[in-house]
Parts: sequence; C-alpha cells; structure tokens
Amino acid sequence: MKWNRSLPSGTRDKLFREANGAYQLEKKVNDVVTHRGYQRVDTPIIEFEEVFLNKDSNLQDCYRFFDKNGRLLVLRPDMTKPIGRVIATAGIQPPLKLSYSGKIFRANDEMLGEQNELTQAGIELIGYSSLKAEVECLACAVDILNTLAIPNFHIELGHAQIFRLIVSSLNLNAKEKSDLQSCFENKNLTDLSRFTAKHPSKLDAFIRAIPELFGEATEVIEKARTILPKESEIMQVIGELEELTTVMNRQYPDLSLTLDLGHVALMDYYTGVLFSGYADLAADIFLRGGRYDHLAEQFGSKMIPAVGLGINLDILVAIQYQCGELAALNRPTTLVHSSLASLPQAEALVKENTGYQLSLFDSLEEALNYGKKWHYKQIIEINEQGIQTKKAVNEYD
Amino acid sequence: MKWNRSLPSGTRDKLFREANGAYQLEKKVNDVVTHRGYQRVDTPIIEFEEVFLNKDSNLQDCYRFFDKNGRLLVLRPDMTKPIGRVIATAGIQPPLKLSYSGKIFRANDEMLGEQNELTQAGIELIGYSSLKAEVECLACAVDILNTLAIPNFHIELGHAQIFRLIVSSLNLNAKEKSDLQSCFENKNLTDLSRFTAKHPSKLDAFIRAIPELFGEATEVIEKARTILPKESEIMQVIGELEELTTVMNRQYPDLSLTLDLGHVALMDYYTGVLFSGYADLAADIFLRGGRYDHLAEQFGSKMIPAVGLGINLDILVAIQYQCGELAALNRPTTLVHSSLASLPQAEALVKENTGYQLSLFDSLEEALNYGKKWHYKQIIEINEQGIQTKKAVNEYD
Repeated sequence: MKWNRSLPSGTRDKLFREANGAYQLEKKVNDVVTHRGYQRVDTPIIEFEEVFLNKDSNLQDCYRFFDKNGRLLVLRPDMTKPIGRVIATAGIQPPLKLSYSGKIFRANDEMLGEQNELTQAGIELIGYSSLKAEVECLACAVDILNTLAIPNFHIELGHAQIFRLIVSSLNLNAKEKSDLQSCFENKNLTDLSRFTAKHPSKLDAFIRAIPELFGEATEVIEKARTILPKESEIMQVIGELEELTTVMNRQYPDLSLTLDLGHVALMDYYTGVLFSGYADLAADIFLRGGRYDHLAEQFGSKMIPAVGLGINLDILVAIQYQCGELAALNRPTTLVHSSLASLPQAEALVKENTGYQLSLFDSLEEALNYGKKWHYKQIIEINEQGIQTKKAVNEYD
Repeated sequence: MKWNRSLPSGTRDKLFREANGAYQLEKKVNDVVTHRGYQRVDTPIIEFEEVFLNKDSNLQDCYRFFDKNGRLLVLRPDMTKPIGRVIATAGIQPPLKLSYSGKIFRANDEMLGEQNELTQAGIELIGYSSLKAEVECLACAVDILNTLAIPNFHIELGHAQIFRLIVSSLNLNAKEKSDLQSCFENKNLTDLSRFTAKHPSKLDAFIRAIPELFGEATEVIEKARTILPKESEIMQVIGELEELTTVMNRQYPDLSLTLDLGHVALMDYYTGVLFSGYADLAADIFLRGGRYDHLAEQFGSKMIPAVGLGINLDILVAIQYQCGELAALNRPTTLVHSSLASLPQAEALVKENTGYQLSLFDSLEEALNYGKKWHYKQIIEINEQGIQTKKAVNEYD
C-alpha cells in the first residue's frame, strides 16, 4: 500500500493548530448552548438502518454494514433522527432543550470531493409548539456565530408546508412531485410555466412566481399575498413567516435575514419553518434546521412538536482559519532539562510555571538543539548541583 | 421494529448528566495534556483496513465495510496505528508530543456484554528513545487521574521484550508461542512446568517463576535476578524496569506501582515497557500503553522511537459517577416568560443573568406549571406593561 495516499475518500487528518482549533471551537459552541440551558445528549455513531429509513430514501449515501447477527447498521448520517428515537423511547418528559456535538457520515462518491466524515453540533427543542421555539433556535444560532466571530453570515427562512400544500392541493403523483421539486430547486420560470399549463389551479400565479419569491421578507410576503388566493392554506404559512421575521428583525436589527418561499425541505421529517445558514466565506450552507412536529411518531411515540438545527463545524473552522480567529497554539517558552534522577525536581518546576516543558532528551546537547530549533526563550538544566539557566537562544544563535 | 430495543449491541445513549459529565471529563483530560505541551491530532474514524492489518490479526473484531470503490474500510479499533500512519506520512518532524481523544470501535459478540463504541483519550511521545519519555507518559497519566479525582488507582508495568526474548531464545514456532502465551496469561504453574520440561533451557527457572513474578517492584526484580542467567538479555530489561520504578517512586512516593514480568503485550507493535492502569472501582483495565519503537516502519518510514498510552474515558466517567465527582448539571433558577412581541427584552434579560432561561411556552400558565415542576425559584413575566416577578414557586406550592 502507498501510505502517502492512505486515507478513505472524503476523510482527512487534522493536525496541531487545526485539530486544536476545531476542538476549541466545538467547546465554545457547547459553552454557548450550555449557558442557554440546553442539556447534552450523546447517541451512538452506529445505529440500526431502520432509524434512518423512510419511504423516500434508500440510504445509498450512507456507510452500511452488518453486525455479527446479520443486522444492517449504518454510520449515522444525521443527528436529528437518533434524537427522535431517544425522545420516543427513553421515557423522558418533554419539554426539553437538547444539544449535541459529534461526527456524522456520508458515503459520497469520490469524484464529488466532499467530506464524508463531518463534525456537527446542534440543538433540538422538544415539546414546544410555540413560534418562540423557532425564535430561540435562531437566537441560539446567532449567539453561536457571534461568539465564534463568524463575519457576514446570513440566515434564510423557508417553510416545509408551502411545497407540500401545493403537492396535495394539485393531487400530484410521485413523478409529478419530483418534477415540481426540480423546478423549485432550479428556480426555472419556463419549466414552472409548463408545469402550471399542465396542472392548472388557483395557485398558478404563485407557483410561477416561485423563482422571484425570495429575498427581503417584507417584499416577498407582500408579493406572495397579492398572488395567493385568500382561502389558500399557504396564506397561514406566510403569516407565520411574517410573525417570525418581525420578531427576529426587532431582536437582531443588524441580522441579515431573508425568505425563500421556494425552499423544499431536504429531509422528509420537516413540517414547518426551515432554516438555512450561509456565510460569505463559505461555499456551502453551514446551518440547516426547522420544525419537525411528527418525527417522534415514526418511533412509535405520540405526537411531540419539535424544532432544531445543526451546524457544520468543519465549515466554521475553515472560516475562523481564514479570518485568523482559529485558536492559536500556546508556544512553550522554557525547556527544563535534567538527568533521569533529577526528573522529579524538573517535573515540579514545570508544574509551577506556565510555558515550561520537560526535556525528554537523554543529553543536554539534544535539548539545546531542540530549544534552538523551536525558538524556546531559555533552557534550564537541573542536576545534582542545582538549577541553572544554562543557555538562552540568543547566546548561541 | 420495536423502538424500545433499538440500539446495536454494545452501544448506548448517554443523556443529560452522563453526557455532560462525559464531555466535561474529556475536556479536563484535554486541558491537562495541553498544559503539559501535547499537540492535538484528530484522525478519521474510518480508515482503510490495511492500517490495522498485521501478521497476527485478521480484524475479526472490527466493524468492516466497503467504500464505493470496493475497498475495505474499518471503524478504527485503536488510535495508535492511525497516529503511526500520520507520523510516517504527514512529513512532520519528530520529536513530538501528540494527544487525541475520540471514539474507537470493537465488534464484540453480543453475549459478552461489552461496549463496542468507546471513548478514548491518549498521548503519544514520538521520536524520544530516552526512558524519560516513559516517565513523562506515566506522569501525564497520574496528572490526569489526580485531576479527575479517581480514587485508589494503580499502575502496573511490564515489558514486551520478556516474552519475545523467551520465544526467540527457545526458537518457538507459532503454535508453541501461542501455548506459552496462554500459560503466561493464566499464570498456570503446572502448565509452565510441563512447558519447560518440553523446552528445557537456561531460562527454565525464570519461566516457571512467571506466576510469582508480579507485585512490589524491588522484590520482583530481586527474585528475577536470582533465577535469570547473568548473560540473559532479559537482565537488561529488568534493569530498565528498575530504573523506571526508582524514578517513579521518587517522583510519586504515594503511587501504587507494581511490576508483572509475565505481562504479554496485547498489540503486536509494542517493543518495550508496557503500562496497565487499574482502579478499585473498575472491573476492567482502564489504561494501556507502552513503548513501540518500530510502528512507523510499518508505514514505510525510517525507525522512529515512540511511547504512548490510551485511557478508556467511559470507565473513568463511571468511576466519577460512583464517587459523586461527575460534573453536575447547572440548574436554572429563573424562567422568563413574555409575549412573542416582547421576546427581545426577555432575551436581553436572560443574557445578562446567570441561571435565567427563556420560557418558550405560549401561555403564562404553562410557564408557571413548568417552573413549579422543575423547581425554578421565580418566574418573571415581561409584557407591554413592563417586567414583573409574577410568581415564585413557594407562592403557589
């Protein structure tokens, strides 16, 4: 094997400053959510595939394998479904504010160049039906992004019911639904016009306007209201988005917050408001979430309203690195060299002083060379005669 | 599927205090190693199986699966081999003090009741041939265990060369080697006598004494020296263990430190001193490590001396829990309820005050009930009329 190309596609080693920076960043995120009263849960990386199965997905993009009893396991591609399993089965009483951080996995094709092992942190508000829970989710995200000094981030809201209400009111079959979804995602006006010609309804004007129904909230809402039939259930959805953006704009006057009424939920479990987070310094969406009021039922529980979001921490690490915000390594200043017999004294000195490190070399010469190479300010030698500041770099530079 | 039995064998959910406690414990460990000058590395959870293959193991006890190109991947069962891969391939210059923490995986049979997803933290000293590196490893372990307030822990030292020198001096084949290993592990005097009768040599007395050659270092070393032939290479090994225990006893007079000359290395890559850590409150060994001077060569590098150890953090979490040392959850004291319109003021109040939490309920009544149930000290209501401390638990208890 060629060991210099020895990592599975979509995985990488993080070393030193990057590894430390990523760890410190994850810690800061966890500190924010702990301060906001979230309680941590830690579910296994390995789950039965049933946890992630649903009628629309066949888990092609998951790492799957068998346990010793021949049952199919997956590396979790998502944190929300395991938390749905927990709240439905662990006998815990909502309402609850849960948080998590850890690895998730995607078996992307090698050619896509995407990460297959990702670090995600997130929150899930369980048992709250109020729109206040959406506000709390977004407030927590803003709090995290400000704490991490992420510049020029941007939140976009959508709503899972818009697409779903169109599909149900037009009685679309699976193929037609999938076609409409493509039109929404591509924001293609010609295709949408063709679609409404084929499936005429009172929603025609709204469907054809989807490619324009994104951007500043007030404008988008006003435009949607002029073209939606008054009796359409989508009107209620628009009202909900208006209420949420009004509160958010008052709470965070400087926040860049927009709407996209053409947003189709990525996961089947979303039932309400959808969140997406972007940043100028990131090519990909780094935050996703929304309301999912019926997930617990998939795991045999009664209906439990819920809303949550997940943040891709690897993207935030990359942004912090670009901005010079990623935690720097502490450089030691002093190397303490001693004989093996004098190690206990050397250890005591290192413990008492910040920036001091033990020399683990057999000879003083090796310690001096190492100290010089890595720009230590001083090398202290401890031996039977006592403690001496033997050399400083500038003396032999 | 019965969702109440919905986790793969050997995995479990950690909730609330346990999850938070485990996270805080891992953080404390990482703080200790950072303070001692270790640099963090974070390798992928998924690796090619070649990283872990060796002549003695067939990876039966690993989770294995194929990537999209048909290559065999494993969930890492170990952190040291991936770090061997890194130091051999990443172009980094030893000496280095590396640290890690994260998940490792074992595909144990269901019946064994063992954990298959474990959290491990550890250190690897790369490029140091001096016995000082062994001392540093142990000092770091003691530092971690004291920081975590683990009571009555115990370190046992062995040496990978003892068993290996016997095997090579007796020219044992694979079967004989495996038989001898069983005798060592079972400390079975009868079997060892039978073995020496079949394979007589100058080492007979030493081999037969193996079941007794453990315990207090001075005694074990003295006994070994009386029965070992003077010219045996094992004498050197004994000298090394004597030097190490002498330094450790001086540095940590209260440390419980013993020898076991019959310890056979669990992993093939060990070449020198072996570490094992036990605690009165744990049934299993929670710390393993040792010197492994030839691992980098397995990945195509030149020889790089190295020594390291790994700690099973799940066991330490269980011990901290038993001792009441596991970090407690911060209980919020005050619930701040407001209308949706007044959320910005409520959010500002929560941010300013420790122990304050937003009510995410629609009605004040729900907030009061929740506050009562979870023993909040007060419930503050914010509305258009201003801020009022509406009710305290004792008023409606």
